[in-house]
Amino acid sequence: MTTTPLTAKTIALVGKYSAAGIGQDLLSLARFLVDAGHNVVLEEETATNLTITEFATMNPVQIGQHANVAIVLGGDGTMLGIARQLAPYKVPLIGINQGRLGFITDIPSEQMYTVLSEILAGNHQSEQRTLLEGCVVRDGQEIFNGLAFNDIVVARGAGSGMVELKVTVDNHFMYNQRSDGFIVSTPTGSTAYALSAGGPLLHPSLAGIVFVPIAPHALSNRPIVVSDRSKIIIEISAVREASVNFDMQSFAHLMVGDQIHIQRSSHTIDFLHPKDWNYYHTLREKMHWNEYPTVSGHLN
Amino acid sequence: MTTTPLTAKTIALVGKYSAAGIGQDLLSLARFLVDAGHNVVLEEETATNLTITEFATMNPVQIGQHANVAIVLGGDGTMLGIARQLAPYKVPLIGINQGRLGFITDIPSEQMYTVLSEILAGNHQSEQRTLLEGCVVRDGQEIFNGLAFNDIVVARGAGSGMVELKVTVDNHFMYNQRSDGFIVSTPTGSTAYALSAGGPLLHPSLAGIVFVPIAPHALSNRPIVVSDRSKIIIEISAVREASVNFDMQSFAHLMVGDQIHIQRSSHTIDFLHPKDWNYYHTLREKMHWNEYPTVSGHLN
Amino acid sequence: MTTTPLTAKTIALVGKYSAAGIGQDLLSLARFLVDAGHNVVLEEETATNLTITEFATMNPVQIGQHANVAIVLGGDGTMLGIARQLAPYKVPLIGINQGRLGFITDIPSEQMYTVLSEILAGNHQSEQRTLLEGCVVRDGQEIFNGLAFNDIVVARGAGSGMVELKVTVDNHFMYNQRSDGFIVSTPTGSTAYALSAGGPLLHPSLAGIVFVPIAPHALSNRPIVVSDRSKIIIEISAVREASVNFDMQSFAHLMVGDQIHIQRSSHTIDFLHPKDWNYYHTLREKMHWNEYPTVSGHLN
Amino acid sequence: MTTTPLTAKTIALVGKYSAAGIGQDLLSLARFLVDAGHNVVLEEETATNLTITEFATMNPVQIGQHANVAIVLGGDGTMLGIARQLAPYKVPLIGINQGRLGFITDIPSEQMYTVLSEILAGNHQSEQRTLLEGCVVRDGQEIFNGLAFNDIVVARGAGSGMVELKVTVDNHFMYNQRSDGFIVSTPTGSTAYALSAGGPLLHPSLAGIVFVPIAPHALSNRPIVVSDRSKIIIEISAVREASVNFDMQSFAHLMVGDQIHIQRSSHTIDFLHPKDWNYYHTLREKMHWNEYPTVSGHLN
Repeated sequence: MTTTPLTAKTIALVGKYSAAGIGQDLLSLARFLVDAGHNVVLEEETATNLTITEFATMNPVQIGQHANVAIVLGGDGTMLGIARQLAPYKVPLIGINQGRLGFITDIPSEQMYTVLSEILAGNHQSEQRTLLEGCVVRDGQEIFNGLAFNDIVVARGAGSGMVELKVTVDNHFMYNQRSDGFIVSTPTGSTAYALSAGGPLLHPSLAGIVFVPIAPHALSNRPIVVSDRSKIIIEISAVREASVNFDMQSFAHLMVGDQIHIQRSSHTIDFLHPKDWNYYHTLREKMHWNEYPTVSGHLN
Repeated sequence: MTTTPLTAKTIALVGKYSAAGIGQDLLSLARFLVDAGHNVVLEEETATNLTITEFATMNPVQIGQHANVAIVLGGDGTMLGIARQLAPYKVPLIGINQGRLGFITDIPSEQMYTVLSEILAGNHQSEQRTLLEGCVVRDGQEIFNGLAFNDIVVARGAGSGMVELKVTVDNHFMYNQRSDGFIVSTPTGSTAYALSAGGPLLHPSLAGIVFVPIAPHALSNRPIVVSDRSKIIIEISAVREASVNFDMQSFAHLMVGDQIHIQRSSHTIDFLHPKDWNYYHTLREKMHWNEYPTVSGHLN
Repeated sequence: MTTTPLTAKTIALVGKYSAAGIGQDLLSLARFLVDAGHNVVLEEETATNLTITEFATMNPVQIGQHANVAIVLGGDGTMLGIARQLAPYKVPLIGINQGRLGFITDIPSEQMYTVLSEILAGNHQSEQRTLLEGCVVRDGQEIFNGLAFNDIVVARGAGSGMVELKVTVDNHFMYNQRSDGFIVSTPTGSTAYALSAGGPLLHPSLAGIVFVPIAPHALSNRPIVVSDRSKIIIEISAVREASVNFDMQSFAHLMVGDQIHIQRSSHTIDFLHPKDWNYYHTLREKMHWNEYPTVSGHLN
Repeated sequence: MTTTPLTAKTIALVGKYSAAGIGQDLLSLARFLVDAGHNVVLEEETATNLTITEFATMNPVQIGQHANVAIVLGGDGTMLGIARQLAPYKVPLIGINQGRLGFITDIPSEQMYTVLSEILAGNHQSEQRTLLEGCVVRDGQEIFNGLAFNDIVVARGAGSGMVELKVTVDNHFMYNQRSDGFIVSTPTGSTAYALSAGGPLLHPSLAGIVFVPIAPHALSNRPIVVSDRSKIIIEISAVREASVNFDMQSFAHLMVGDQIHIQRSSHTIDFLHPKDWNYYHTLREKMHWNEYPTVSGHLN
């Protein structure tokens, strides 16, 4: 938690792709920030989609090089998309949710003016999230690479076959497994696909990575959490058709013998939250932990 | 689904134990039913708890012998409690929920007059639920017995020990298992404790019984659903302290060698539902299936 | 359990596809049966694969029409494959496992002569298994249909998208769900894919069908077991690419609006087991319930 | 992994409590170590149980003060028991399994002479494990405290009631929950009770603590892994009868308002393993990951 004021010179605004509905919100926000003395730029695709010409535009690389902070209007998916692109540049992100509360877009748009004023005045918490970086190695050559905020997933293709994988961690053979797929997830991703597939929640401050097999053949292939300093290799042992997805970026047509090398990225990204933000509060809301339970009849 | 009119002569009203708040609702309902030409009696403990003296009272056995239908105001627990007592007498039950929608108390109290009028006019669905009957056998002698609408549960006592059980079905040895306990559940109970412990949902029309081990030592001890014609014997192999619970009725101090014999009861109970009632509707509401999902980030 | 002697006139032998290793076993078995006075035919692909010309051959339809019993050498997959083809013809099946014990190929090849003599002398148990039949309906027209012993599975295609499905049972809307896929499984299939995806075991005598969502978006989308008299409709609500698999037979390229209609088939198949066969014995072996548990440290 | 030779002066031997069968092994081992030039002492209860008088004895505190290394013959339970007592003293432990391979007693007794010679010659890996420390606070006063290698578990007592808990992490409210109990586990404990209750595996090098609710009322109360720097408070909100267990040491009769404070202990313990030891190897053996899977029929 930091309280050093953030006298933001240049603020980039990023909107959900093709979400025409946010145009007015984004425009009002931009003008509000200009009035507050900031230099405002729009991410170029956002400007194009919303046909806003009133502000200068930048592409993500330019934002990375020049902006002091980026504000995202959208959902968690929009936030993760731009975060991946800005990761090399240390630009902190603020997420404003349009619609439902997100895990990382935690500022309701109704409250954005007051909350942003506070945050930009330096009354905020800064929370660091890790990324995974991975690559596909075939015959000793790297043929694809990517970054992932949520997860890197090896998945079978269409049809009914399974994938067979050999998993190695820090040069130690872990296991062979047969399943629909294998999820390697960050703490951020532990509330996404990994959770659906039966994985545990990981607090964002945990220096861990979780492996979650999807519908594994062996019942004892349970989720396992390893240190985020681990070097992970997943080798394709047998497959009809499989792909690997870095968040949503996909490399199809994996072949037997292909290896996916995964480790924590040297990049991290900072999310700026309101002073009173609390991860568990978001978790309670998203997981419906506040509501009274659904199972009945054994205590009443 | 039946439409034969139910010209109820005698209607018993049953209220949630010690729920003073329902007094006015229950009194209004009683008068409404009298006005509609019915003979109304109150379950005797309900009358005592609510200090209502305006109506004749009956104990559950008398209700069983004389009432044409029983209406329950309360939650699922209240409903199951009286259902167990009325099971031998074929008195159908109608459940009115006070507070949250229940799985079986499915008529909101705000709508009770209109819905009850419809049901009592014969526009209803009748749904049959099964019960389990069980007994504890020690040294060849039955020393305890009980009925259960939800489940019969063998559970370890306090402290950290486990129970070791030997399970036999239709005279076939199934397995030995070590766990915190073992749940034998009806379809009705499949939304209660069995669900918390990882069991599947069973539709009420399924002629099945589900076994759900609680925190089993062996990871492959998965829930198993058997026919409800099965004769089940659970024998205590090793234990520091264990009890068996028939719904909420408990027999403590099980000893090594004790057997719990379980089978479907020859009794059943009929629940009367509104014409447009639908089990899946209740399930969706209770399980929050209507809401949009909590897992984020892999489709948006 | 029956003891009527089976004076088998015509016995069909079926071998695992392209499993050259079983040639000698199959040949010896054929001669043994001929010596015992039976008329032996080989399934035609089996004869071709093993290049055996000593016996008459029949295709599955002919076997269905003329054989009194079929003996399968192979694994559960081989057994299910021929069972699906013979289902319309009421030919009972006997399964001899080559290699590991199967759930339904329950006679070890080392014991096949003695066990088969017993079974063919009428000392056997007959166990009836159900099948599912399903079809794909597009714009009101059935465009594909199939039978399944294990399961009918709607699954997303390659890439990272999910399927969105609307499930209806007996004309009652059950739920919308978003997941990697949806398994509709028989009791026979409950030990296969459905188990990997988190489903319960169903005893073969249970008149039930289990729905198991694969990595569902909503955490409360638990497996649910319904009566096998249910009429099930799964409608594709949204999808990038999805297929439906009837056991291993696949129909790809499902489109939004396509419906998969599923119900229990009017066909059943009989498996003949040795007199002392017991489902729970097989289950214990296959699930490693005999071994002592893997979890440590809380009772020693 | 270290290779500094361990010229052990004083070696303490500890045997499984009341395991008479290990007497000969322990005696042979003691003589072997004396012959190798080491000073051997026996843990005093071990000596008493085995009626061995040939060697000097020490109680655990004395072992902690004087021994350079302790060798344990027994199972994981024996190992954890003495480890808890030696934790304040930095005495490394070596575990020799009698019977089945343990997670931490990883040297088979058949190989103990050769392996111990290697380890004592300094050819070993040293692996550090963390402990939890916890205390019960009532009305502001600490009334009980304990250490745990595996887990600290709050559990309901006998009968069918649940516990209601309020969980706070680093002064942030996490959730209220109703369940059979709540497990707070180290990585070491993640293969024990926490695994039975549905928790993930945690690699020993992960700086994490996992919370696993036992049969929680709310389906979305999933296991959650937090940093091992977290300060955890569990407050009893409602209960008929509950206890808290520190590994096996139990404090019964928790009352409403009692708080259990939990954090990582400042102590750690070192396990010495053979040079070629590998955690994943043990995990594969214990979890039966080497065996071919039990689920059948969807790939053959």
